[in-house]
Formats: sequence, structure tokens, C-alpha cells
Amino acid sequence: MRKITIVKNYLKHAEGSCMFSLGETKVLCVATVEEKVPPFMEADKKEQGWITAEYSMMPRSCPTRISRKKLQNGRAQEISRLVGRSLRACVDLEKLGKRTITIDCDVIRADGGTRTASINGGFIALVLALKKLQKAKLIDSLPLKGFLGAISVGFVENKMVLDLSAKEDNVADIDMNVVMLDNGDLVEVQGTAEGHTFSRKALDKMLDSAKTGITKIINAQKKSLGKI
Amino acid sequence: MRKITIVKNYLKHAEGSCMFSLGETKVLCVATVEEKVPPFMEADKKEQGWITAEYSMMPRSCPTRISRKKLQNGRAQEISRLVGRSLRACVDLEKLGKRTITIDCDVIRADGGTRTASINGGFIALVLALKKLQKAKLIDSLPLKGFLGAISVGFVENKMVLDLSAKEDNVADIDMNVVMLDNGDLVEVQGTAEGHTFSRKALDKMLDSAKTGITKIINAQKKSLGKI
Amino acid sequence: MRKITIVKNYLKHAEGSCMFSLGETKVLCVATVEEKVPPFMEADKKEQGWITAEYSMMPRSCPTRISRKKLQNGRAQEISRLVGRSLRACVDLEKLGKRTITIDCDVIRADGGTRTASINGGFIALVLALKKLQKAKLIDSLPLKGFLGAISVGFVENKMVLDLSAKEDNVADIDMNVVMLDNGDLVEVQGTAEGHTFSRKALDKMLDSAKTGITKIINAQKKSLGKI
Amino acid sequence: MRKITIVKNYLKHAEGSCMFSLGETKVLCVATVEEKVPPFMEADKKEQGWITAEYSMMPRSCPTRISRKKLQNGRAQEISRLVGRSLRACVDLEKLGKRTITIDCDVIRADGGTRTASINGGFIALVLALKKLQKAKLIDSLPLKGFLGAISVGFVENKMVLDLSAKEDNVADIDMNVVMLDNGDLVEVQGTAEGHTFSRKALDKMLDSAKTGITKIINAQKKSLGKI
Amino acid sequence: MRKITIVKNYLKHAEGSCMFSLGETKVLCVATVEEKVPPFMEADKKEQGWITAEYSMMPRSCPTRISRKKLQNGRAQEISRLVGRSLRACVDLEKLGKRTITIDCDVIRADGGTRTASINGGFIALVLALKKLQKAKLIDSLPLKGFLGAISVGFVENKMVLDLSAKEDNVADIDMNVVMLDNGDLVEVQGTAEGHTFSRKALDKMLDSAKTGITKIINAQKKSLGKI
Amino acid sequence: MRKITIVKNYLKHAEGSCMFSLGETKVLCVATVEEKVPPFMEADKKEQGWITAEYSMMPRSCPTRISRKKLQNGRAQEISRLVGRSLRACVDLEKLGKRTITIDCDVIRADGGTRTASINGGFIALVLALKKLQKAKLIDSLPLKGFLGAISVGFVENKMVLDLSAKEDNVADIDMNVVMLDNGDLVEVQGTAEGHTFSRKALDKMLDSAKTGITKIINAQKKSLGKI
Repeated sequence: MRKITIVKNYLKHAEGSCMFSLGETKVLCVATVEEKVPPFMEADKKEQGWITAEYSMMPRSCPTRISRKKLQNGRAQEISRLVGRSLRACVDLEKLGKRTITIDCDVIRADGGTRTASINGGFIALVLALKKLQKAKLIDSLPLKGFLGAISVGFVENKMVLDLSAKEDNVADIDMNVVMLDNGDLVEVQGTAEGHTFSRKALDKMLDSAKTGITKIINAQKKSLGKI
Repeated sequence: MRKITIVKNYLKHAEGSCMFSLGETKVLCVATVEEKVPPFMEADKKEQGWITAEYSMMPRSCPTRISRKKLQNGRAQEISRLVGRSLRACVDLEKLGKRTITIDCDVIRADGGTRTASINGGFIALVLALKKLQKAKLIDSLPLKGFLGAISVGFVENKMVLDLSAKEDNVADIDMNVVMLDNGDLVEVQGTAEGHTFSRKALDKMLDSAKTGITKIINAQKKSLGKI
Repeated sequence: MRKITIVKNYLKHAEGSCMFSLGETKVLCVATVEEKVPPFMEADKKEQGWITAEYSMMPRSCPTRISRKKLQNGRAQEISRLVGRSLRACVDLEKLGKRTITIDCDVIRADGGTRTASINGGFIALVLALKKLQKAKLIDSLPLKGFLGAISVGFVENKMVLDLSAKEDNVADIDMNVVMLDNGDLVEVQGTAEGHTFSRKALDKMLDSAKTGITKIINAQKKSLGKI
Repeated sequence: MRKITIVKNYLKHAEGSCMFSLGETKVLCVATVEEKVPPFMEADKKEQGWITAEYSMMPRSCPTRISRKKLQNGRAQEISRLVGRSLRACVDLEKLGKRTITIDCDVIRADGGTRTASINGGFIALVLALKKLQKAKLIDSLPLKGFLGAISVGFVENKMVLDLSAKEDNVADIDMNVVMLDNGDLVEVQGTAEGHTFSRKALDKMLDSAKTGITKIINAQKKSLGKI
Repeated sequence: MRKITIVKNYLKHAEGSCMFSLGETKVLCVATVEEKVPPFMEADKKEQGWITAEYSMMPRSCPTRISRKKLQNGRAQEISRLVGRSLRACVDLEKLGKRTITIDCDVIRADGGTRTASINGGFIALVLALKKLQKAKLIDSLPLKGFLGAISVGFVENKMVLDLSAKEDNVADIDMNVVMLDNGDLVEVQGTAEGHTFSRKALDKMLDSAKTGITKIINAQKKSLGKI
Repeated sequence: MRKITIVKNYLKHAEGSCMFSLGETKVLCVATVEEKVPPFMEADKKEQGWITAEYSMMPRSCPTRISRKKLQNGRAQEISRLVGRSLRACVDLEKLGKRTITIDCDVIRADGGTRTASINGGFIALVLALKKLQKAKLIDSLPLKGFLGAISVGFVENKMVLDLSAKEDNVADIDMNVVMLDNGDLVEVQGTAEGHTFSRKALDKMLDSAKTGITKIINAQKKSLGKI
């Protein structure tokens, strides 16, 4: 597994922020708190909050420059939805109150694992924003179900690899992203075999390995954030 | 599990087509063959074909009408990518030759499971198109790795449910989509716990159930398509 | 004239719907009722309802696939406006009350005459929706001025042809679409000579022929809908 | 009928141009010649030219300002198509040769009849551009089938009105646009009864009146252009 | 300096308008008054008005036709912002009251200096609209700080040129636009050296020359508008 | 003047990059070299290169979050054009050869002066990319006319301020951006008086002050880049 680096409060004026690095992958995760909920929630008249995420590559985050018009493509929207869903899974939205936290995940440098780095760094930004709300006495306690970590795992030439780099990802037969709470409960399992297939046995092996990786991630988060 | 209905060759002028129903869910799946590959494949100079999919709800496929401007949203793009990836996994792209098959999946009526219905019906349209290519002697044999089926499975009030309807899906704690070949190999596993989490044990149980469901789907496909 | 097929209530959950076929042309027409009027009517403070239509080809409705981005082109907008205007002409909007009925006309298969099929099928969907409103006691009687039918007529190699197929339409010197009430009053007359011109005499002949065709269309509508 | 004013060569650098006024309605019509044909004609490998038109209101052409984003709406596209089709009907595209003439019709002031003013002024701009091509010996003779004129006619409170102003148009029960060659042959007939219907007899009366009006228009064109 | 022509009230139905020509450059400037302010001003709760401008080329304003899709490009937006800012600088927005004046500047013909012509003509349209407000007793006096003029000045082959034509502009080493009040105070100074640089001395020389030019412009405005 | 910090080669895989900070303002500037020129240059058949820039705020670079859809607004396009023009002014495009260098300037944090920081940091990224080209022997020498620096200067409550922060910028009566070579020659002068005006004397004072500031900027660039 690659080296984890967490720089908390990278943007001092934001409610929560962190520069999260996983090896050469570097994602700026920033939390914005707004005292309103999206229209569809207003319509539902539910007394709860909302957490959403927006993921975007930066134009030169990759070896080849990507045109700004192509940054908000289908892949980016798919990852935005995954990050938002994952972060919502670890928060009690009713206790959050009628407010929205938006997590912007901008990929400064992409070397594989940008979606898991976004979830991991997004969690840090989210917790920092929640702490700020608590400090301002807008919420009593942190409405969290636990720490949340994510990792990718796959098979490259029949060998299992945890936390794939871009180079490994490009040649991987299978690629799985796993999101987990610190109690071991699963939040998301997305196993994809681009041009290949995989057995139940391989799935099990990957899930075991992912658990080990996520434990390391969550330990780094705990070290950075302290008790929550 | 809900009733499966397959109407082959729904659009006689298309290379392959099928109206696929799963209970009240109804998806029109149409295959178009073009004798060219996308620009990114041309650039790679690979001697192989491509399979892609486009998924879209129709404006009044749901109880409430959706504005046409909102049909191509992030969710639709995410499902388009899933359907395309799944169909590519069961085809030998090199044997397909330098041509593109586009599978349009238009949801006439949505009552849960539209993405799995799109994969199941899309597979039928794809095979019909491949058969047409074979008949025209453009390919020697069908470049298929096997039959491909997909099903959703989830937990509703702590009870496992296979093939969720819209009503069940809305209250499900966990929702998993599984794509599998007829030999039992996995193609995609997408487990999502919107606002909840799930244990490894629940995951295993859902995978077992999905296998049973997909077997039924593939049997229906086999009955409709004959030998491939 | 080609064979007319009407499948009422194709989408049971919609307020009104019908699959309308004219030979190989097949259009899904669906009516949605909303208890509000568009902003420009709100501004006018008129106490009346509104009827609007949206026409769209489906990607593989034609022999060649059309990219989804090109479906909402100028031609589609022109036809949407024609269908909406025609349907408004046969309804007493004041009696309809402050509600909007949107008629979605999605062309499943195009073989000429898709705009007239949209008007004919759209009328069925509209009436079914109005009947539903009447049954729910939201309106007293059906606010209709009569049955509404539409047909195309043209000249191919100096020979008049009623209800042109795509093949005929492509070589037609003149193409006219006529919309009429069952009492013979005209609603729309759109005669177009792409690259040609036509005499008053030819116009008269075409109008006579159109009347015969529309009578057949309206008879089929009456058979399907019963008394209105 | 309102006063016709034609200012030829309003933009000296364009291949053809004219400021055409019909009462208070004022449209700037400009012809651009390009030595290429659109992609769909290239694909057809036809040895002929193309004529197309683009119609647009200007933001403050109406009593109320229109936002620039709303200028290119469905109505504008419908009119663009009508103007282009009408102008193509009076030109022999094969004799034009493989070039495209684009007629831009920008409405400086709208007081009813902007689409017919666009056709009338567009014809002048087109002829001027063709004359320039002839002078440059790129074509031998003007590939024209005759003069082309257009006029609107309708019924206001059961009284027929030729060349409707905006005020009249707003209260008209029926509105018809007629495009005709100077030999009396019809090019386009578009009769619309917004919220009303009209009899065959009324149609005939309007066509007779339109002919008188178009004769006056064409006389003004002849006076401005000389022999063609 | 090229000939200045001002045609006041070109569009009689608009609150203020003027066709402003500077040699072959011709811009239609139209003022629209609306009794509301933009959302960002509403949010600020300031009791003042707003002036904004929209600049656009017309498709055939240049020797080569510009596609309508490319008219609202970065350059047009930059000029719109410059015109709006310049006009705001000469008006007391508090005295204007809570209303918005939008100045549309549509370039009929471009031969260099379209942005300065837009400011000069826009000022005339603005004053005419203010006079209308005064006449309607909506404002007591014209809330103006003075007359406003603009001119371009540059160096072509080491020779200073005032009021550059398109031909001169294309070969100019330096291009400066200056906006000034009639008391000599500066409103905007935009000096640009595309591919070149310029000395402080050259800047001073250009500013002196611009002042002379703007004086002539303002004299023409005074002649057209009378006392303000 | 605020503290200048330059982190060279922030993105090791890019041809040139730098994180440029001016007090709390922080801009990531990245150079991408492509061995092709834009279509308009191909059309001109000039044997020279091109330099272009794209400026964008990041969603949470400001105290309030900006929606991603609003990041590419008129202001951003105006600044992109300014940065590109300024950088082109210091390079000999013929000596650069037929290649394009794109400078992406993404504002991580905005506290005033983001456009000047983009020019200053963009210059560093550009030089690093040129050095890489020289090292790869694609160019003989660095095609530079000198160092390039930019600074803002304005008047706040009648007091001149160099290098305005966001707080100062918001209350400034005048705001001027100056771009200069190290030999003192001017590249861009953009003086703007939002709602105010300024005298020639004030302009002169600001230009003097800007020169002092730019000298400091260029000294920092020289320290970071060494000899060029």
C-alpha cells in the first residue's frame, strides 16, 4: 500500500478541508456548509440534512491534459455520486439538521485510486466541518456512525494488488472499490471486470485484502483527526 | 421474482432489438452496428471492436413526468457505463473486428430494475446483431464468452428480496446489482447501502440469491435465442 | 392508405396513452396532467388551461441511428409546436380549467407520417386523460370541439399519394399535412414544395383527398374511444 | 397592405444584402456565399449547391426585451427552415454549383409579418449574391425559376386582413402565410388556426387575397432589382 | 479620425436608441428600462439602480461570416463588461432608483473600434432613456456625472494612429482604448501590446491623442443630445 | 506588498508548474506543451507557435462556494485572455516553433490579485516548460524577451495601495493591473474605475508604484528560476 499523507485545514477559510495524498495521487477535499437543503428534500418536508459531493479532475492532473469541457463527464458524475452516497452512509442525517454539506473533491494529481482518495479525504473534510458546527453549538454531538475508509483492490496478471496505481490499474483484469466503516460493515462494494470476469473466491479474497487496507487508512484518519 | 417477457426483433429494421419486460418494467433494447470504431480506439491502433450502451428513461416512464432536459443526468450516464461494460465483458472484442455495436436501452416503463433489464435485454439485442453479422459472413462465429444475466437483490426491513420493484427499492436498506455469466463467473458486483451498511454475511447471502435469479433470467434468454 | 392500429392505455400509470401505428410508423403518445399552468399564462392571469406537446424521434427509429444529442433539433421543435397547436384547436381551454396537459410523442419507428401519427395518437391520449379528469369529477364534461385527425398527402411523379411512406416522402415533389375536425373544418394546412412548386388546382385536389383520409382516421379513433 | 421599402446593398462588404421594411417591420437580410456544401450533401455526392437561412429576432425588436439566450428558440428555428425551403424552391440548385448561400435574416423591429419580410428581403439578398457570382463569371446565368414573394393573411373578427400587423396578428382567429412565384405557383401554404378552425371557403378567399398582395411585393422587388 | 454619424431614436418603441457610425463601423445601441434590479443587488438590499450592457457582433458584420453559436464568445463577454462598467461610471446609481437599464450593442458592421462605438452610442441611448424617465417624472433630474466618450489609439509601424480601422488594427503593435468624461477624468484605460511592448512615453502620447479624439466624440454627442 | 512564495515543479509530470502565492492568494499554474498549433494558425500557414491560458477559480476558493457551472463565466474568460496575451508578449513565437503551450491557472484560494498571480506564476510555469524543451533539444535557446511581472494597484479612500487584497479591492475606487517586462516596458495597462473616475496624475502615480512592485515580483522570479 502506498504512503498516506493528510494535510488538515489546507484552506483555512473553508468549513473543513484536507489535502489527501495516496502515493502520487493528491486530492483537495473541501467541505462547505450551507443552512438549507436541496429542493427535492424541501418538497419531502423531511426534517433532516443532506451531504453531497462533487468530484472533478483538474486539467493537467493526468500525463495528458484534459480539456476543461470534458472534465464533467459521465465518469466524474458517477464518482461524485459514489462519494456522496458513501459519506451519507456514515452520518445520521436527522441529527445533522436542515443543512447541506457539499464536499468538493478536486484531483490535483491522478495516479490511480482517485475515487477512494476522494472518499478518504472527503471524510476528513466532513468531520472537520461537523466539528466546526459543534463548536458553534449548532449541533450537540458529531452525528457520525463511525470512521469511513475506502480502498481499491484488483488482480494484475493473476496476482492480487491492494491500492492500485494508475500503471497497475491500466493492466488490471479486475478492479474493485470497497468502502467500509471502522466496525467492518460494508458501505459500498463495486467490483468491475473490464473485459474479464472473476470468481466468488476472488471476490472473497479481495474483500479480505480491502479490509486490511481500509484499517490502515482509518488508522491514519484517527491519527489526524483524534477522537470523534 | 417477477415475470420475464422477451419480444425479439421488435424493430425489424434494426440489426438487433428486443422489448424486455420484468414485471411492470419494460425496456426497449436496440443494437446498431457501425463499421467504425470510436476515435480513442483509432488512436490506439488496436485491431478490435467496441460495444457501448446508452440508457435513458422516457419522459413518462415514471409516475411523475420527467422533463426531457433532465433525462440525460448523472444516474443515466452511470447506468449507460455499467451496461456497456457488462456487455463488453461477454464479448471477445478482437474477434468482433473493427466495428462498433451501440445498444440503446430506452425505458418505456420503470418499476424497479431498469438497469438489470437493460443488461438482460441489451444482451438479446447484441446476440441478434451478432447473428446478423454472422449470417452476412462478416464474422465466422459468435464472439461470445457465454450468456450474460443481471439481477438486483436487496434487504427490505431485514428481509432479503430478489428482483426489487420500485416500491421495494424505495424502502430497501441495501441494494445490490449483480451481473454474471452462465458459468457463474461474476462480471459486476455493485452493492450500495444508501444510509445503511451491510455485513459480509449479508453480501454472501445476496450473491447466492442473485445467482438463482440470474439462472432464471439466462434460461429465459436461452429459450428466446436458442443456441449461441 | 396504410393500416391504422390503436393500442389504448399502453402505459397504465399515465393519465392517457396510446401506441398509434400507421403502417410501419409507430408513435407512443402519452398524456400527463399537471395542476398548474406555464409561467406566461400565470402572468396573463387568464383562467384557462394549456395543452402542449413534445415530439421526439428515438435514436434507432430510422434506418440509420441518430445521436441522442441531435434528437431535439429544429425539425423536432417545429413538429412539437404543430402537434400542440393542433390539439389546442380542438379543446375549449377555459373549460379545461387551470391545468396543463403535456402530450409526449416518441417515435418508436419512423416510416413517414410521424407528425400526423403524433397528432392522431396524441388526440387519443388527450381524450383518455380528459375522461380521467371527468371521472375524477375535476371537469363536468369533455371540453372538446370534435374529433381531430391529420394526414399527409403529396405528389410523387405527378401522381397524388395519400398517407406517404418514408420511401414516397423522399421522392415527393410536394408534401402537405392537413389537420381537420370531424365536421370538416380545417385546423392546419401546411403545404411545402421542397425544390418544386404547386398549382392552386393541385392544392385543391390534395385537400379533397386529405379529407377522405382524415375521415378514415377519425372513424378509427371513434371506434377506439367510443362516444366523447 | 403596408408600405414596402427596400434598401439594397445595406452592407457593402456582403455578397448580397438588403434592409426590407413592411410598415414598421424591418428585417436586415444578408447573403453569404461560401465555396463549399454542407456535410450531408458531401455525403450524397450530389453535384449541386445549397441555400439555407437563419432567422433571429434582435433583443429589443419587440416592445418587451427578449433575453439573448431565448432568441434561438423553437419558433426561430421553424421560421429559419421555412425561409430556407422557400428560397431553395425558386433556385435551380444544380446550376448554382457546389456552393452554399446562407441568408441571415435579423429582425431589427418586429411589427407582424417578420417571416414573410424575411422571405421577401431574403430573396433580394439572394439575387444580389447570384448577380455577383455571375459578374465574377462563376455562374453563366442566374439559376432562378422566377421572383418569389410572401405575405400573411388572416381573419380578425370575421373580417379578412392582408399583411397583418402585430396588433392584428395577436387577435387574429386564423393566420396564413403564403409563398408564391410570380407565375402564381405556390411554394408554401401555412394556415394555422390558433384556438379556432377555418372553412375551405375561407382558405380559398385567403389564397386569392394573398395572390394580390404577393403581386404587389413582387412588383416592388422587380422595381428594386431590375430584370433577372 | 473617421466621420461620426448619430441617428437618434432609431427604434421608436425602445426607451432609448441610436445607430452610431464611426466611419464604416456601425453599431445599433438600444436602451431597455426595467423596474427591477438583478438578484445580486436585491440580496445586497442597496437602494440603487443598475446599468448593464450586452455586446454582440452580427453574423455578417465582418468580411467573413461568423456562426451564430460563436457570437457570444469570450471577446464579446469582455466587451460587454467594459461597456457596462464605463456607462455605470458616469451615472449616479442611487439617484437612478431601483431600476435596471440594459444597453444592447449589436454590431451591424465592424471596421475597427466596435467597442468604443458601443460605448459612445450606448451613452446616447442611455441618456435618451433617462430623459424618458425624467419626462415620465420617475426621476427628478438626469443622474449623470457628465458626457462619456471612448476612442481607440495605437501605433502602426511606429506611427501613432487615432481611431484605428480594422485594417490598421490588424497590423497595430499597440492598441489602447480610453474612456473619459468630458471633464477629462479617466474612466477606463486598456492598453494592450499583442506581441509587442510599449514605453511609458508612448503611453503618455497615446493618452494625449485619445483626449483630443474623445473631445470630438463628445462634441458630436452634445450636438445630437443637446444639454443634459 | 504581500509575501511572495513560489513552489516550482509542484506537479512533477507536467512540462512546467508552480504554486504561486501572493499573501493568502494561491494559484496553481501548469504548462502543457503540445506539438500542434490551433486551427486558426494552421489556416494562416504561419511557421510559429502559440501560447494560451485558461484561468478558473476553484469552487471553494472564495469565502462563499461558487457552483461549478458558474466558474467559466465572462470574468474568467476575460482573465484567461489577459494572461494568454501577456505571456505571448514576452515570447518570440517564431523561435518557439510550431507548438502550443497552454498555461492552466487554477485559483486554489482567492484573496485579491488572482489575475496578476496567474501571470506571475504562469510565467514561471512557462519558463520551466521552455527549459524542458531546450533540454530535449527541441529549441536552441529560450525564446524570451525578458522576465514578465504583473501587479495590481489602486486607490482606497484616496490612499494609493499596491497589491490589493480582496478586502481592499472591494472598497477600492480605482483598480489598475499592470504587466511589465524587466526592462520597464509595458505589456498591459488596465485601469478601471468602478463607479468612479481618476485623473491623469493618479494614473501616473499608480504606474510608478506598479513598477516598484513588479520589480520585487521579478526579483522573486529570478531567485526561483535562475538565469534565463
